[in-house]
Amino acid sequence: VTCTEALLGEAAACRCPLPRGDCPLSRLLRRLLSARRSLEICLFAFSSPQLGRAVQLLHRRGVRVRVVTDAQYMALNGSQIGLLRHAGIPVRHDQEDGFMHHKFAIVDKKMLITGSLNWTTQAIQNNRENVLIVEDAEYVKPFLAEFERIWEEYNPTNYTFFSKK
Amino acid sequence: VTCTEALLGEAAACRCPLPRGDCPLSRLLRRLLSARRSLEICLFAFSSPQLGRAVQLLHRRGVRVRVVTDAQYMALNGSQIGLLRHAGIPVRHDQEDGFMHHKFAIVDKKMLITGSLNWTTQAIQNNRENVLIVEDAEYVKPFLAEFERIWEEYNPTNYTFFSKK
Repeated sequence: VTCTEALLGEAAACRCPLPRGDCPLSRLLRRLLSARRSLEICLFAFSSPQLGRAVQLLHRRGVRVRVVTDAQYMALNGSQIGLLRHAGIPVRHDQEDGFMHHKFAIVDKKMLITGSLNWTTQAIQNNRENVLIVEDAEYVKPFLAEFERIWEEYNPTNYTFFSKK
Repeated sequence: VTCTEALLGEAAACRCPLPRGDCPLSRLLRRLLSARRSLEICLFAFSSPQLGRAVQLLHRRGVRVRVVTDAQYMALNGSQIGLLRHAGIPVRHDQEDGFMHHKFAIVDKKMLITGSLNWTTQAIQNNRENVLIVEDAEYVKPFLAEFERIWEEYNPTNYTFFSKK
């Protein structure tokens, strides 16, 4: 284990709209912004403007960003998904009844960010949440493989369209 | 790292009402049922009858079980929380506007079970989910400390009651 950090959400610690100093959100942002080459994001719900801006910044810096999300939640008010797509970031979503309920990201194929936290302002400010940050390949690899599997499965060219006979 | 397993939810693998053979739910049950002394559970939503029965069985075997959950979800239809309380298992819940959104358990103070999975039939059967099982103290300790902190904070004797003047 080369790097581990458990961010256990003190709700009150993150009420600042722009994170200053050391709070769970600022630590999460710092890890995210360390990306140099690639960022895979697999999130049930993504509405945090700060995390959305960080992802757009990485995209502008040339980091290869890919996003997988849940179809039912991506169109909700305040979702960042439309903004990310508008910025040119590829987004794929499920076509299933169940939820795409993962909440993880992988930085440069070597750092896994996972836990209970959806990237929403509600969750960051008001909920009890945990985020685990891990650089051990034993943990990162199965999540990366799962991302690639879902990414292919949610490829729009694989969608099945039903039409009336 | 003495023991690690990433259970990445193949929804279809767990549609059996009683898990047979090797599926993510049967592997989760096996880890849970390995408890000999203590089991801390910190779950946003708990409605899976199989997991509920496993927890009750551990309680009957003399394992010290403690449950923390979310107040808004514990009274929902199908919740296991009432059954656990009825069986004599101590349960504490938040009194907050935000959600107690953790989804983790700790077996014998040395095995952490965490991830995106709420212990619900919906999540087990229909969602994309992940469960990380870790025995590395570096990961287990902060979660155990968080459980103890929340357990004390949610002690009913600490509740504040507001009354009209």
